[in-house]
Amino acid sequence: MTDSKKPLILITNDDGVHALGINRLIEAIAPLGEVVVVAPDGPRSGMSSAITSMNPIRVSLLKDEKDLKIYACTGTPVDCVKIGIDRLLGRKPDLLVSGINHGSNAAVAVIYSGTVGAALEGCIIGVPSLAVSLTNYSHHADFSEAAKFGKSVAEKVLKEGLPKGICLNLNVPDIPKVKGLKVGSQTAGRWTKEFEEMKDPSGKSVYWLTGEFFNEEPGNENNDEWALANGYAALVPLHIDMTAYHFIEKIRNWEE
Amino acid sequence: MTDSKKPLILITNDDGVHALGINRLIEAIAPLGEVVVVAPDGPRSGMSSAITSMNPIRVSLLKDEKDLKIYACTGTPVDCVKIGIDRLLGRKPDLLVSGINHGSNAAVAVIYSGTVGAALEGCIIGVPSLAVSLTNYSHHADFSEAAKFGKSVAEKVLKEGLPKGICLNLNVPDIPKVKGLKVGSQTAGRWTKEFEEMKDPSGKSVYWLTGEFFNEEPGNENNDEWALANGYAALVPLHIDMTAYHFIEKIRNWEE
Repeated sequence: MTDSKKPLILITNDDGVHALGINRLIEAIAPLGEVVVVAPDGPRSGMSSAITSMNPIRVSLLKDEKDLKIYACTGTPVDCVKIGIDRLLGRKPDLLVSGINHGSNAAVAVIYSGTVGAALEGCIIGVPSLAVSLTNYSHHADFSEAAKFGKSVAEKVLKEGLPKGICLNLNVPDIPKVKGLKVGSQTAGRWTKEFEEMKDPSGKSVYWLTGEFFNEEPGNENNDEWALANGYAALVPLHIDMTAYHFIEKIRNWEE
Repeated sequence: MTDSKKPLILITNDDGVHALGINRLIEAIAPLGEVVVVAPDGPRSGMSSAITSMNPIRVSLLKDEKDLKIYACTGTPVDCVKIGIDRLLGRKPDLLVSGINHGSNAAVAVIYSGTVGAALEGCIIGVPSLAVSLTNYSHHADFSEAAKFGKSVAEKVLKEGLPKGICLNLNVPDIPKVKGLKVGSQTAGRWTKEFEEMKDPSGKSVYWLTGEFFNEEPGNENNDEWALANGYAALVPLHIDMTAYHFIEKIRNWEE
């Protein structure tokens, strides 16, 4: 199925296989190995780690070249990773790269992002995984700096690996010349004023998700929002074990 | 809008407002305060922390009694929490309870679960939040033990609160008499053999998500799978900050 001499790299995203961001990522990553793309057939933004359990999914082979296969999948980003590794790749890939997302996935966006959800899924399966996002939602954004930093981090992951249970979240600011890379933490924050009410043509209320990000730690110079605001690409290691270990002993007396 | 003398409790789930589990939960929680239910209008299992960003959502008031309002929402579990708190409740609730889920949300299921996603969302917004699940997928499961433990933990949370950024994940085994409550960690594990291939009526391949859970730490007596397998309800504190802090210094030399 696959050429075992080169690293096998799975690429996915949440904006869909036709988005500019994933195509810029494919160009950047292609020199590093054999690339198989399994990406949603259309936009799946905000899908988090959603899985499709009540309907079947379908897969179409869009491109079949030496060292580059591209599949479109009707499922979520996590479905793409699962079916890619379980059915399409022939073996576990050496690296998963998800993105380049159109828009920031810094701070609490890791919880909602399908791009990050795909990287977390790779991590669960035991594949060194990286999510890459650019802080620009435009369809025609300039992905050159994000692709450069994404490739650079991907090379380091291929060389050094990642520990079990940890993946990486890279966000790149939308500026012509990024100053460098900072490693830090997920910024604490939340969204406020989240809905805009409108009337549909029959006069009934509908609600559109919108809102403003509220940074709960603006003075922290070690987190991803600080790095992005100051011209740096922000790299945050994430773990899939969400246990708040320090709190276990605090509620031990709740045991019955 | 709301009676400020009693605790205000938001209830949601991912199986939909008509599921048996949420209705058993409402009965159990009702004595603790004023209850507002904002739940999906149908099943949303496996929706994780997905949000609806590209379509509007709608809300219908199904029941409007003293101390119990029930809304159905066309969105995801996280959408339900967001619109409940932003638009329907009038003030931030004192407690959020999500469930009772039809099926386990122990171990890595926290990543995929809409029930847990809703509790994480409450946590992000700053509401003490609890997810409750029963390890039985049947529509007609016996929720009495899960409701009892859910109410008991909810009372403790109302009394003692939870620290910022931490919520609780409670799983209850499907046995007639649960031995007690154990506090522990999220079991490390993953799903294997994930897809079953079938042919649609036109002969094209479709893939259904299925699979088997593989427990990566079967000897650990401090995690949720151990507790459930041994007849205990399992309570795991989760945090929304996914940063792997101990790994930051390990890749500090990747900075440029």
